[in-house]
Amino acid sequence: MKKLSILLFLSVAIGFAQNADEKQLKSVYSTSLINGQSYAWLDHLSNEIGGRLSGSANAAKAVQYTKAELEKLGLDNVWLQEVLVPKWERGGAEVAYMQTNSGKIDMQICALGGSVATKDGGIEAEVIEVKGIDDLKLLGKDKIQGKIVFYNRPMQADLISTFEAYGGCVDQRYAGAKEALKYGAVGVVVRSMNLRMDDYPHTGSMGYEDVAVEDRIPAAAISTNGAELLSKQLQKDPKTKFGFTMYCKQFKDVKSHNVIGEITGSEFPNEIIIVGGHLDSWDLGDGSHDDGAGVVQSMEVLRLMKETGYKPKRTIRVVLFMNEENGLRGGKKYAEIAKEKGEKHVFALESDAGGFTPRGFSFDCSDENFAQVESWKALFKPYLIHYFEKGGSGADIGPLKDDQIVLAGLRPDSQRYFDHHHAANDTFDAVNKRELELGAATMTSLVYLFDKYGTVTPKKIKG
Amino acid sequence: MKKLSILLFLSVAIGFAQNADEKQLKSVYSTSLINGQSYAWLDHLSNEIGGRLSGSANAAKAVQYTKAELEKLGLDNVWLQEVLVPKWERGGAEVAYMQTNSGKIDMQICALGGSVATKDGGIEAEVIEVKGIDDLKLLGKDKIQGKIVFYNRPMQADLISTFEAYGGCVDQRYAGAKEALKYGAVGVVVRSMNLRMDDYPHTGSMGYEDVAVEDRIPAAAISTNGAELLSKQLQKDPKTKFGFTMYCKQFKDVKSHNVIGEITGSEFPNEIIIVGGHLDSWDLGDGSHDDGAGVVQSMEVLRLMKETGYKPKRTIRVVLFMNEENGLRGGKKYAEIAKEKGEKHVFALESDAGGFTPRGFSFDCSDENFAQVESWKALFKPYLIHYFEKGGSGADIGPLKDDQIVLAGLRPDSQRYFDHHHAANDTFDAVNKRELELGAATMTSLVYLFDKYGTVTPKKIKG
Repeated sequence: MKKLSILLFLSVAIGFAQNADEKQLKSVYSTSLINGQSYAWLDHLSNEIGGRLSGSANAAKAVQYTKAELEKLGLDNVWLQEVLVPKWERGGAEVAYMQTNSGKIDMQICALGGSVATKDGGIEAEVIEVKGIDDLKLLGKDKIQGKIVFYNRPMQADLISTFEAYGGCVDQRYAGAKEALKYGAVGVVVRSMNLRMDDYPHTGSMGYEDVAVEDRIPAAAISTNGAELLSKQLQKDPKTKFGFTMYCKQFKDVKSHNVIGEITGSEFPNEIIIVGGHLDSWDLGDGSHDDGAGVVQSMEVLRLMKETGYKPKRTIRVVLFMNEENGLRGGKKYAEIAKEKGEKHVFALESDAGGFTPRGFSFDCSDENFAQVESWKALFKPYLIHYFEKGGSGADIGPLKDDQIVLAGLRPDSQRYFDHHHAANDTFDAVNKRELELGAATMTSLVYLFDKYGTVTPKKIKG
Repeated sequence: MKKLSILLFLSVAIGFAQNADEKQLKSVYSTSLINGQSYAWLDHLSNEIGGRLSGSANAAKAVQYTKAELEKLGLDNVWLQEVLVPKWERGGAEVAYMQTNSGKIDMQICALGGSVATKDGGIEAEVIEVKGIDDLKLLGKDKIQGKIVFYNRPMQADLISTFEAYGGCVDQRYAGAKEALKYGAVGVVVRSMNLRMDDYPHTGSMGYEDVAVEDRIPAAAISTNGAELLSKQLQKDPKTKFGFTMYCKQFKDVKSHNVIGEITGSEFPNEIIIVGGHLDSWDLGDGSHDDGAGVVQSMEVLRLMKETGYKPKRTIRVVLFMNEENGLRGGKKYAEIAKEKGEKHVFALESDAGGFTPRGFSFDCSDENFAQVESWKALFKPYLIHYFEKGGSGADIGPLKDDQIVLAGLRPDSQRYFDHHHAANDTFDAVNKRELELGAATMTSLVYLFDKYGTVTPKKIKG
C-alpha cells in the first residue's frame, strides 16, 4: 500500500506539473499572438532605423532604441556592454557591366563585406569561370593571371535545409578572393548565395587574412540571374570582358555596444539563461529577417514572461549582440566578460535564422540534457513544433560553449530565408506577423522549461 | 533455428522494402526541387490566364491549357468530364463610402460571390454592428429594420490553425445576408476573413437558399482595416451612414469541365487512386494559392512518377475539379459518374490549402488505414513532414466518401494562407517555388506508398 501511495503521489505530482506547463505554454502563445510586441518593435527597427552595419550611425541608433524599449519593460537591470567593432562602408553604388560583341550589358553586383575598392575608374578584365576554390589549382597561374575569377557553384537545390545548401557554397564568398589572388587574379565575382533566380546580389562577409592591403583584390557578389547570363556569355565567347567599380572603405575600429537586459532569478539568481539575436545587419536591406526578427523575438521572451505573470527562478537575460555579420566581436566580448566575472551560464538560445514559422530547435549539449529536451516534445505538439535535433546553435552564443551549458538555436522554416539573406529585399514586408510571433512564443516556452527544471548536471566521471 | 531464419528473412525483406521506399522518396523530392514543372505551370495558369471563376472565359481557357499539358505527359488517358456550373459575375468595380460629419470616406469592399447587385444608384443606410448571427435575434427587427448589418467578428488570432479560425467566422459570410433579411436589413457588410490588418477585401461564397430573388439583399466584404475604421466611427457616431453600389449578376448555368488524366495500373487497374485540386478560383486575384497550387501539384504527382521511372500498380488519376468555390459541382459530378460506372476508388488526396511549405496530411479513414499511414511517418522525417492526423480531407473529394476509401488533404503551413485567400493579392508572386515543389513531392510520396502497399481492407464484422 505504501508503494502504491508513493506511485499515486508521484503520478499526480507529474500530472500536475504537466498541466501547469501546458497552461503556461498556452498563455505564452496566446499572449504573443493576440497581444504581441515583437512586430511593432521590428517595424521600428526596420522602417524607422533600417540597415545596421557595425559601426554605422544606424547601428548606434538601434542600440539606443532597443535599450530604451527594454527599459520600458520594467526589467531588473538594463545595460550596455562596450565592444570595439570593425567599420566598413560600401561607399557609392557599385557599377558593373559585361562587354559583349553586341554591346555593353549592365549587371547587378554588390561589394562583399570587407572587400577593398577597385582602383579609380574600376577594373576590366577577362573572366575565368570556376565551380569552386579547388578549380584554381587545376587551372594554375597561366589561366588565371590578370583575370577576374567568377565563382559560380550554385546552392544545391535538393537539400531540404537551405542552411546546409548555404554551407556547401559559402567558402567561395568568404575565401574566394584570398585564394584567387595567389594565382594573380585581379578581382573576383561570386554567385549570390540564393536559391531563387532573381536580380538581387547578396552581400556577406569575406576575409583576406594576412594578405597585405596593397595585394588585396576586390570581391563582388553577382545576382543569380546575372551569374547565369555571364556564364552563358562566357560559353559563347570566352574572351568576354567584365568590368566593375566599387567604392568601399575600411575604417579604424569604433566603439559600439551589446545591449543587455535581465530579470533576476528568484531562487537561483546566479544561474544565468540568455536569449539573443544580433542587432547589426548588412546594409543593403533593413535587416528584418537577419536578424531584426531574432532581436525582437529575444526581447519578447522577457516581455512574455512578465506579461503572463511568470517569475523565473533563474536569471533570464536578453543579449542583443553587436557585429555578428563581420567580426562576431559582440559574441566574443560577451563570453569574455562572463568568464572574467565568473558567471555561470546554464542555457543560451539564439534566434538567427529568420522570422519564419518556427519548426523547433537545434541543440549543442550533452546526451543527458538532450534527453530532457526530448521529454518536453509533447508540450510543443499543439503548436506544430516538432524539430528537436542535435546540431549547431548560433554564432553569437558559440563562444560560451563549455561542457556544462546547453546551447540552442531556433529553427524556423528555412525555405524562403536565402531569398532575402544579405540582400536589398531583406525588408519588413517579407516578415509575416504571425510567423514572427509564433517564433517568439516558441522561444519563450523553451526558456520557461529550462528555467523551471534547470539543466541536467553531468555526473562527474571518476579519474 | 527455423524461427530465427524466418525472422531474419522477414527483417531483411522489410529492410529491403524500407530502403527502396527511402530511395524512391529521395528521388521524388530531388526531381521536384531540381527539375520540377509545377512552378512553370502555375506561372502560366496565374499570369497568362488569371482568375478562373466558374463559367468564365478564363475557366474555359484553364480547362484547355491543363488538358493540353496533361496530354504532353504521355499519360494513358486524358479526358474532359462535362459539368454544369453556376455563372456569376461581379460586374463593374464596387464603390463604398462612409458618411461622417467631416465628410465622405471611401471604403474598400467587394461583393460576396452570389450576391445580388444593389439597386441602381446603390444603397445608403445606417449601420448596426454585430459580432455574429446570434446577435440578430437579441437586437430584433426594431433595431435592424432598414439598416445595413455589419458582421464584425474577427478570426481568433490565438488558434494555431488558421483554418480553425476561419471555420469560427465563415458563417457570417455564408449565411449573414439570408439571416439579416429576416429582420428587415437592407444589406450586409462582412469583415473579411483575414488575420492580417490590410486594405484587401476578401470575397467568398454566400447563399440565400430559398429566399425569393426579389427579397434578396446585397452582401459585401470589407477589408480588415475598413472594418476597424467603420467600427470606430460607429462608436463615435452610431447614426453614421454607409453606402455601397455593386453590379453583380447571376446567369443561367453553363457547361464546363473537370479535367482528368490517368496512368493505368499495372497490377490492379481497377483500383483507382486520385489526386486533385480545383481549377476554378475567385476572380479578384489570379488564384495562385487557391487553388492553382493544388492543381499544378496534382499534375506534378503523375509527372514525377513518370520522371522517376515508377510504374504504378494501381490506376493513378489526376482530377482538376471545376467549381469548388461556388457550387462544388465538379466534385459532385465526379463522384456521381464514378458511382454510375462502379469504379472502385481506394485513395483520394486533395491539395487545397495553398502552396506553402508542406507539414503533412489530414486523414478521413478507418483506424486500420490510419495505423498504416503512421507506420510510414519515419520515411517522411528527412523532409520535415511531421503532421499526420485524423480530420477533414478536401471539399472536392468529399462526395467519394464511403467506408472503404481513404481520403486525405495536404496540410501546408497555414499561417499566411488567409492573408491571400479570395483576395486581389492571391497572386503568383506570393508563392515560393521551393515550398510549392516540396508540396508536390510530399503528395507524390504518399500516393506512391498507397499505390505500392494498397489500403487496409476492413475485416467484415459478422452480423
